[in-house]
Amino acid sequence: MPLPQRFLTSVLLRREGELFLFDCGEGTQISLKKLNLKWKKISAIFISHTHADHVTGLPGILMLSSQVEREEPLYIYGPPRIKEYIEASIDVLDMYINYEIIVEEIGGAGAVHTRPGYEVRSFPLRHSKPCVGYVVEEELRPGIFFPEKALAKGVARGPLWSQLQNGSPVQNDRGEQVLPADVMGPKRPGSKFSFVTDTQYLDSVAGNVKDSDLFICEGMFTEELAESALEKKHLTAKQAATMAQDAEVKSMGLIHYSPRYTSKELDILLREAKEIFPNSFLTRERQIIEIQNQD
Amino acid sequence: MPLPQRFLTSVLLRREGELFLFDCGEGTQISLKKLNLKWKKISAIFISHTHADHVTGLPGILMLSSQVEREEPLYIYGPPRIKEYIEASIDVLDMYINYEIIVEEIGGAGAVHTRPGYEVRSFPLRHSKPCVGYVVEEELRPGIFFPEKALAKGVARGPLWSQLQNGSPVQNDRGEQVLPADVMGPKRPGSKFSFVTDTQYLDSVAGNVKDSDLFICEGMFTEELAESALEKKHLTAKQAATMAQDAEVKSMGLIHYSPRYTSKELDILLREAKEIFPNSFLTRERQIIEIQNQD
Repeated sequence: MPLPQRFLTSVLLRREGELFLFDCGEGTQISLKKLNLKWKKISAIFISHTHADHVTGLPGILMLSSQVEREEPLYIYGPPRIKEYIEASIDVLDMYINYEIIVEEIGGAGAVHTRPGYEVRSFPLRHSKPCVGYVVEEELRPGIFFPEKALAKGVARGPLWSQLQNGSPVQNDRGEQVLPADVMGPKRPGSKFSFVTDTQYLDSVAGNVKDSDLFICEGMFTEELAESALEKKHLTAKQAATMAQDAEVKSMGLIHYSPRYTSKELDILLREAKEIFPNSFLTRERQIIEIQNQD
Repeated sequence: MPLPQRFLTSVLLRREGELFLFDCGEGTQISLKKLNLKWKKISAIFISHTHADHVTGLPGILMLSSQVEREEPLYIYGPPRIKEYIEASIDVLDMYINYEIIVEEIGGAGAVHTRPGYEVRSFPLRHSKPCVGYVVEEELRPGIFFPEKALAKGVARGPLWSQLQNGSPVQNDRGEQVLPADVMGPKRPGSKFSFVTDTQYLDSVAGNVKDSDLFICEGMFTEELAESALEKKHLTAKQAATMAQDAEVKSMGLIHYSPRYTSKELDILLREAKEIFPNSFLTRERQIIEIQNQD
């Protein structure tokens, strides 16, 4: 349930010019408009589960996306019935869509969206209907390039540097082979983002979100309501923090708060989380978070 | 399409403690929350047509309505497919609803919701899919009660006054019959409210909204775009004003503006409307308008 200043759940992730949406509650298109991003095209939408508060913003986003020209399809992933929801909406509401939508229903664990440089995987959560979490993980990135080493090896500044940076051996000015490893540091890990909402506590989450740079996780209730959380299959802030700690993530942002808490009362959730995992924070409407790379 | 500060279409009407909603665009529940009304129960929802921007707020309103106890059913009226939309939403999204919903699909002209004291009627509009306008008309209200006339007729202050006010004859202190008409003025007209959006210009609208105290009408485009309005089957502000003038309504509020106009540019729509019908105004987000009774 929304509050006057608290919209329903949705997280937008930007990676090198591509945009991804995680869940799409009612009002998401309004938030996007308020953000006034130079956003044009969302590449893919990842839905945790088909409860109304996580998907009823989809028709608006699909129609908004028809306001720009696009050649690429829009991918939508989610548990069973997401396809039925989208198809029924487009059909019954006569939605005008000027691009291809590819909906893929996912079962649980595995790669759902693999592209050069990164992969999005899902993993099962446990809620009152089929629900999944997502992780976006970049491939290893090339190591740091050391110009002085290249020069010492007899490779002058120019196109050969790009070849080395792209992983190809080159010949130096003496006709000898120079390998990328001769002039570059070790490969660096990519960034990792994870998104978990609407689940009871599960030990298995930590393994899936292991080492995330940013872990966005439901923190619906205070510990006082842990029993109610379990019954309704939601997480307490403390449980989210436990997952964050077990997974050794870099930072954890709470999301999907119970409407019973006013903005001020959310501090209790944060305090309970920080006791377990100090690098916790409360996510807020239209907050922009930079994912810090690990090096 | 919403703008950062401009939500999609919905009008809430309150009459003697009952609430009615006309259309229900995405974000309506958020606006309701922002209004912080002591709202509890919406008695009936009237949908003009099943385009996404007029109905995707419905699942949220239906779920919000499950937060309060209610015995009475919620009535939803709209053109064909509204039932399919609501049933599919409830089914696919596993919506928790703790009250009865009665959906009635309406064909065009006629009474759709008749209750003591008022009637809601629909009438056909012409859009790219079946669309109707609505009018809420109160019955004639009792005339003004004159205490001095009652006393002169020998009816003392007390329960007999209520009987007279409720339309029943009584006996005075001399055993003579006193009629309501002896102590009350002529019956007074009730209030009339009308709601018209998403239609090309139709001569027939004026007759249906005749003498409305408040006429809420689409004014999507300036006159410069009259051709585009006709093609897309929408109204210009001037056309709305022409209907208002022909119908001799008391006041007319424009709604459903094209997102091409900034808040400031809406003044052009208002100016064009006022040239035809001076008692025009621009409706705004969460504006509260009192419907002035005619006497």
